[in-house]
Parts: sequence; structure tokens; C-alpha cells
Amino acid sequence: MSIRAVVWGENVHENTNDDVRALYPQGMHECIADALNKNAGITATTATLQQPEHGLDEQTLASTDVLLWWGHAAHGDVSDEIVDRVQQRVWEGMGLIVLHSGHFSKIFKRMMGTPCSLTWREAGEKERLWAINRSHPICAGIDGFFELPNSEMYGEPFTVPEPMDTVFISWFEGGEVFRSGLTWQRGAGKIFYFGPGHETYPIYHDENIQRVLSNAVHWAANTAAAWTGIEDAPNRALADALEPIEQKGKSLHQDGEEGFK
Amino acid sequence: MSIRAVVWGENVHENTNDDVRALYPQGMHECIADALNKNAGITATTATLQQPEHGLDEQTLASTDVLLWWGHAAHGDVSDEIVDRVQQRVWEGMGLIVLHSGHFSKIFKRMMGTPCSLTWREAGEKERLWAINRSHPICAGIDGFFELPNSEMYGEPFTVPEPMDTVFISWFEGGEVFRSGLTWQRGAGKIFYFGPGHETYPIYHDENIQRVLSNAVHWAANTAAAWTGIEDAPNRALADALEPIEQKGKSLHQDGEEGFK
Amino acid sequence: MSIRAVVWGENVHENTNDDVRALYPQGMHECIADALNKNAGITATTATLQQPEHGLDEQTLASTDVLLWWGHAAHGDVSDEIVDRVQQRVWEGMGLIVLHSGHFSKIFKRMMGTPCSLTWREAGEKERLWAINRSHPICAGIDGFFELPNSEMYGEPFTVPEPMDTVFISWFEGGEVFRSGLTWQRGAGKIFYFGPGHETYPIYHDENIQRVLSNAVHWAANTAAAWTGIEDAPNRALADALEPIEQKGKSLHQDGEEGFK
Amino acid sequence: MSIRAVVWGENVHENTNDDVRALYPQGMHECIADALNKNAGITATTATLQQPEHGLDEQTLASTDVLLWWGHAAHGDVSDEIVDRVQQRVWEGMGLIVLHSGHFSKIFKRMMGTPCSLTWREAGEKERLWAINRSHPICAGIDGFFELPNSEMYGEPFTVPEPMDTVFISWFEGGEVFRSGLTWQRGAGKIFYFGPGHETYPIYHDENIQRVLSNAVHWAANTAAAWTGIEDAPNRALADALEPIEQKGKSLHQDGEEGFK
Repeated sequence: MSIRAVVWGENVHENTNDDVRALYPQGMHECIADALNKNAGITATTATLQQPEHGLDEQTLASTDVLLWWGHAAHGDVSDEIVDRVQQRVWEGMGLIVLHSGHFSKIFKRMMGTPCSLTWREAGEKERLWAINRSHPICAGIDGFFELPNSEMYGEPFTVPEPMDTVFISWFEGGEVFRSGLTWQRGAGKIFYFGPGHETYPIYHDENIQRVLSNAVHWAANTAAAWTGIEDAPNRALADALEPIEQKGKSLHQDGEEGFK
Repeated sequence: MSIRAVVWGENVHENTNDDVRALYPQGMHECIADALNKNAGITATTATLQQPEHGLDEQTLASTDVLLWWGHAAHGDVSDEIVDRVQQRVWEGMGLIVLHSGHFSKIFKRMMGTPCSLTWREAGEKERLWAINRSHPICAGIDGFFELPNSEMYGEPFTVPEPMDTVFISWFEGGEVFRSGLTWQRGAGKIFYFGPGHETYPIYHDENIQRVLSNAVHWAANTAAAWTGIEDAPNRALADALEPIEQKGKSLHQDGEEGFK
Repeated sequence: MSIRAVVWGENVHENTNDDVRALYPQGMHECIADALNKNAGITATTATLQQPEHGLDEQTLASTDVLLWWGHAAHGDVSDEIVDRVQQRVWEGMGLIVLHSGHFSKIFKRMMGTPCSLTWREAGEKERLWAINRSHPICAGIDGFFELPNSEMYGEPFTVPEPMDTVFISWFEGGEVFRSGLTWQRGAGKIFYFGPGHETYPIYHDENIQRVLSNAVHWAANTAAAWTGIEDAPNRALADALEPIEQKGKSLHQDGEEGFK
Repeated sequence: MSIRAVVWGENVHENTNDDVRALYPQGMHECIADALNKNAGITATTATLQQPEHGLDEQTLASTDVLLWWGHAAHGDVSDEIVDRVQQRVWEGMGLIVLHSGHFSKIFKRMMGTPCSLTWREAGEKERLWAINRSHPICAGIDGFFELPNSEMYGEPFTVPEPMDTVFISWFEGGEVFRSGLTWQRGAGKIFYFGPGHETYPIYHDENIQRVLSNAVHWAANTAAAWTGIEDAPNRALADALEPIEQKGKSLHQDGEEGFK
């Protein structure tokens, strides 16, 4: 079955900045979805900030295997209720791919539990992405490294937790380095952060970038059934104990009562 | 210099439940602080939910090296503003030790980015804590394992991120297992979660429990200066680039302008 | 394409112990291979210690996607040359599943870099395996936990490196716990250690055990091409530098010369 | 008590190459030991390949808290027996700091279980080391990054296991990146690999390099008593079981008998 991907775009600069509109007349999200749809195993659609519920209603999320997230100027405009909902779905097993300036999105900061800060410079300098974990599925088809002639510099320290996999590290012309491809797991959900993606450069038209995103969608898709109720803390009543035990000591709770939350 | 520890207690059941009051007449937080203060290298004080700013004003946190957190029935009563402040200090380097039912505290869930759920049973059954990482500083003085005759069962799956160190795993009489001692780093702050601590049993009077908490305070204390500004994303202006580069491509930002957040 | 699995068996106790022979008349390796072959996506064959090159000649290994390893009494009889060869193939991307007493095999100790020791008791006691990472592909079809009525106790401390994923933790009737399902990556190869498998109990006839092994074969198979030459340290000559640089300082080596090893 | 460090040097190029001898007339190992001895909390001595037992007799190792290892041309001349002995001591808790070309030393490859390969170029180019984990004890006194005007390029992929901490990542003038400071734990021993150190440049005279090495010695020293017998797999006899159990099923071993190894 085809993997169902949703590309979420903030869709702001595409409508307010002529340079961005020229590169992405339909928006970056549509460009990314088109690239994913070239891949036989992926069916990608889009959602944007401006839609009702930001295009991420319950039904849409329930039928999404992997969500890609691009935001920048309007992180603060994303409703906390929708972020709750997205986080819940990632815990249940939906993959999450966070792009570029999404490092400061509400959903990414929540998932990491860290500031997710970095240094940056918008000078159009060269970025060279080295494949660190060369046989990782996300690196399929990348031959050791690839380059972007113009990129926004994102530099260390990138204040995220130590990752599960270090997939890419970038070299920048101006002298910085950046862990530009990292993975984590949160609940049942697999997460990939990918650094490149500044809106004034044609990053999402680049063949290698499209290849990495397509690989990442395949990697992040979880074939297990959704882990619904993952946030519950069920009481295992004495009567249902796996080994025969007897009540000892004092109790706060009645048997089978729900815990505090 | 002595490590400055603050033991934060929700201080609810000590005042509403006779069994808890009998075990901890001054509150669990005072019992824990007393235990830490037996250690020459630690100076421990307490703070509670009921105090102004929950006892965690800016000045107190700024002079705290390690914060211990015990909460259960009143997680929802902790102010988001104070949680912001605690999280900020952990990022800057303050150690955080989360105790027992604190698995569902706001601060722990934020730091983990996961549900932090588990299963539980209040039957006073036996818990045996196995030291997995036997030479870890947190295990100093523990000889392979130790037992609690009466404990609340906390069982897997414990929905937290894969840890930095697996320090303890517990065996329960009723048939469950639990990763009862785990560590992580978030920003500059070191975090330790420790499972035992149910309020109707004399857990914090136990010598081994006191030893582990004292060890953990030493482990979590960071001698580095506070990493202030860790949440900032500074622009590295073109003129200050470490390598000589020239502006290329289109820009969104003026040179030196602050980024979106 | 079907995943090509090879089940390697030491094949000693099957021929010297009547109890073992009664349970596994064709050997444990054949029992495991039969179980894997019930799975449409896997083609499993076997190899044993007694065969020339232990059944692991260059050609066989080159066409193996995942190797399963069961050894116990004869670890010392495995040729170092064959261990070198297996290790090389794991680095290149072949999956490795190490079973039960294989914790002390040459190949596993080499891959871990640690003692791989544990405690043990052969009392036929109950083992309950808890799925820690419930949506991990290796747990597919396991409903929270499963039990073995008779198992050899393997207990902590299990002296292996902190894993990539903690998949299973076992509870034992006699009071111990054990991390019975752990994963790591070494080079391009994915490794899974799985605890149960004592030869005097019908462990490999158990449906859940067979399910886990089948899941693990799927998980460990790497679709990337073999990373040949992964052990080389190529010189990147000055003339081929990605950025224009000039020779500075003193040199030990002539340009393009091979390094020390 | 002062930390007892031993700096092990292969001591070959210092005696065969005029450029190296000019920089390190007493050998690199003596230069490093002198630097460590400036630190009040460290007492450093040296050992070399040419000494009996390579200067690493049982008694010396038993009284060593942290071993630093520099080797390059003569990895193959190090006796396997001495490597066994060093590995055993690291498992027991001795810290290990592996320097530069030591990435291909027998002891490092054994500890990692991976090829430990990388790419390299001896062009005397600039290396800039970025502190990734800025408040890590190994980074104390380093202000974000530091530079070496002349360094040997070591480039990714560096085929080691995903680390416990990513401490430094290097930027190279010629276009490569390298994870130049990484940590792991093996048994009770903490391991730090540090990239810079080519013998034809005055790397070990650099103040920042000396600071990092001194920090690393403090970080790697384990205050726990040596974990002797860590490689044993003790039988826990039925009679000594922590919970009352009875013998069930068939057995290979007599009660209390030693296991296979």
C-alpha cells in the first residue's frame, strides 16, 4: 500500500515575497508534494496554516502515515490544539519530518524538549552535506556527499538531544558545521530533521534533496497499527496480577481506580 | 563548594491522608532534604506547591544546582510560567531529578517529549532494583541490587525516549519489570528519573534510596557556568564570517536582523 | 525479493545429549530455518560448525542478507578467520541475529567490544518477555508481553554497550531481570541479540519466539548495496580536494601514498 | 586524590623523522604528560612500545586511572596479550583516551567493534573544532570553537558506533567534516576519541588541545572501585535464588557448575 504523506506548509513567504513566489509559484509545500508523488510508493497531499484547523483535522491526521513540516515566520500562529493533535499522532506512530526553519516550530520543540536553537547566516554560501551513516535508508542514492551551491548557513551548537542516528553533517563555506540530518523516536513515531530548505533558494527543486525527502518518508512510515491510548496509565488491578500476590501496606487508591494525571 | 539542591514537594497527601502524614510528618520533601543534608557535599533546602511561585522564584532557581521533583495529585496546579522557568534553568545546566509519580509532571513530560505513561498497581508488593550500569556514579555503594519490601508497581511500557544510561531495572513480585533508573541530557542539563517513592510506604526512609538520591545529586550537578541564552538563535553576520565569503543569492533578512521565532 | 537468511548452528548438544536430540532431531538450526521459511518473504538455509569453513565460505556470506548465530559449548572451536569474514560482512551491511548463549560467541564479543557477561541459572523457571518498544518492527504481533513456561534464567548485569533500541526486558520467576532483546548498528550492519533459546527446552518451537525471529530477520535486512571497502582509509589527495587549498607544513607521506594500518 | 594518567606513545617517528624530532625532542608522549602535569589534579607518567611489555605491565595498569594512547606506524607491533590486558582494565573502569591515528589501533578497533576507518589528507590545512555539547566537562574553557592553523584532515565517514556524546565536530579548509570528539562507555570504562594530533605539526603544544586533554582525563576517571571479574558469567544456583523456585525441566549443567565460554 502506498505511504500517505502530508506536506504541511506555512505558506506565508510564498504570498508576500516576490523572490519566493518566483521559485515556488504554487508554494513550497506543493513543490515538495510533487517531488514525493514522483515516487510510486508515496501518495502525497498538502495542508497549510490558512486552512480550517490548519488542514490537519482529526480525520486527515488519522489517515496520515508521515507528516512533513515547513514553517518559519508564523510558528506562533499555529494553534496549540492542533499541535497537541499532531504530537498525539506522532506518539501513536505517525512519522514526522521537520524541515529547515521548522527547528523552531512548536511541534519540534515539544518533541525534543530542548531549545532547538542554532546559529544562522543568509549569505547564499555553499553547503556540502556529508552522509555519515552511509548505508542508512535515508542516504539511499547519495554518493558520499552532495552540494548546494546556495544555502542558508545553519551552525552548531544545534541544541537538540543526542540523536538515534547521525545521518548528515554539513560543511559551510563560511566556516561552520551543522548536524543537518538527525533522527529520533518519540513514542511509536520516528522523527527526521533535515536542515536545508531556505525559501529564497531553489532547494526543493534539487534532485538530491528530493531523493532524501522521499527516502525519509519511506524510513519514517511505521507499518504497525496506531498505538492508541499510549498516553494512558492503566491500573493493573490486584485481581489481574500475572503472579499471585496479596495486598500489603496502606493504599491511596481503591482497586481499579484511575490514577492522577 | 557544596552542591545546592532544592527538593520540590507537591505537599498534598501529607496534609490530607493520615497514613502519609504518619510516615512523613514534615512532608516527603523535608525527609528527602534531611537525607541529602547528611552528605557533606550537599546543601539541600525545600520548596512546595503552596508557596508563592511554588517556592521557585527566579533567584532561588538561579542559585540551584540540582532540583528534585516529587508531584502526584496536583500536577495540573503547577503554573505553566514556573514550568517554563524550570525548563529554562535545566537547559542552562541545572540538574533535574524526577521522582516516582513525577513521571506525569508537566516538567518531565516537556523534557521528554513523550507521554511518559506506564502501568501501575498499589498492592504493596516487593520491588527489587537491579543495578544495570554497576559502576555508574549513581550506583555507588549499591551492591548489585537492593529490595523494597513494599512498593507501588510501575510497569512497562514506560513511554520515554531511549535513555543515555540505563541505571536500574526493577523486578516486581506481581510479574512486571520497569526501567526504574534512567538518565538523559536536555540542553546542558542532566536528568535522572527514579521510580520508587509511593507516599504510603516509607520509601524515602530507606537507606539505599537515600544513597541513590545523594549519588544522583552529585551526578547531576554541572560544574560549567550556566549556558545563558541557550534558546537564542544568533545571526552570524556576513562581515563576521570566520572564512571570507561574499553575499550570493536573494535574502529575506537584512544583515544582522533577528530571525523568526 | 526474498530475504536470504542463514541459520548457523554449533550443532553439538543435538548430537551428544538425548534431551536436546529429542526436542530437535534435525538440530536447532533446522528448526529455526523451518520456522523462518514459513514466512513468504524469507528464504532460510543452514550452516554448521562441522562443515568446511563452518559452512560460511565467501560465496555463501556474500549472498546472505541476515545471519542468525546459535553457539554454546564450542565458541572456542570457531576459526578466527571465519569470524573475521563474518565481521567484515556485517560491517558491509549483513544483518546479524545473535541467539541465547551466543552472547559469549567470538563474533558477538567482537561486535560489542565488551565482556558480554551475565548471570544464569538452569532451573526451568518461567520467563515473561515484556515488549518495551511496542511498535518496533521486531515486536509485530506480540501483544504487550509473552511467556515461556520453562526457560534458562539470564540475569543482569548484561555487560553490553547501551543499545540503539531496548526491545524486550524479561522478568524471571527466581527474581532476576534481563534485557532480552537489544539492537545495535556496527558499520552498515544491524544487530539484534535475543535472549531465550536454551537447548533443553522447546523454545524454538514456540510460536511467539518464531514470530520475533521472523520479525528480526525483516528488520535486520539492509536493502542498501554492500558497503565494500568500509575498512579502508582512503587518502584524499591535495589535487582532488573539494575546496582549493595549498600544501602547508611538513609531511610524513608522499601525496596519494597509502596510510598506516 | 590525584588522577593517575599514563600517556602511551608508539615513539617511532620521533626517532626516525627529523621534523617530528624537532617538534617533540622528548617524544609526543612526554609533551602530553608534561601538559597534563601542569594540572594540579593529575599525575601523568609515560609508557612506550619499546619498553618491556610496552611499559604496560599488570602493576602499572592496575594503578592507572586513565590511559592515553597515541600510535600510528606500529599498530601491528603491539602485542595482542598487552591489548587483552588493556581492554580488561578498561572494562573494569580505567578511562581510555584515544588520540588521532590511534583510530586504527588494536585497542580502539576492539572497543568499537567497527572498522574505525576515515578519509585523510596531509596538507597542513586549517581545522576548526566546534564544541557541540558546549557544557560537557570535556569542553570546559573552550569558547564555542577553536582553530588549528595546520592539521591533517580526517574526514567522514568515520566508521564508529553512534556515540554517547558528540563533543566536537571539525570543519576542514579542504571541504570535509569530522566528528573529532566522541565518547562511549564499554564495561565500566569511559572512552574519548580526539581527532587532532598529527606528528609533523605542533598540535600537542597548543593550549586548547592541552586543555581538552586535561578535561578529558578528569571526565574519564572513574571513582568506582575496579569491576574485577566483569568478564565472568556466574551461575546463580537454585538454592540461592532470590525467590523460592523449584527445579523444572531438563538440565545440561549440574547445579553450580561453570558455564561454557
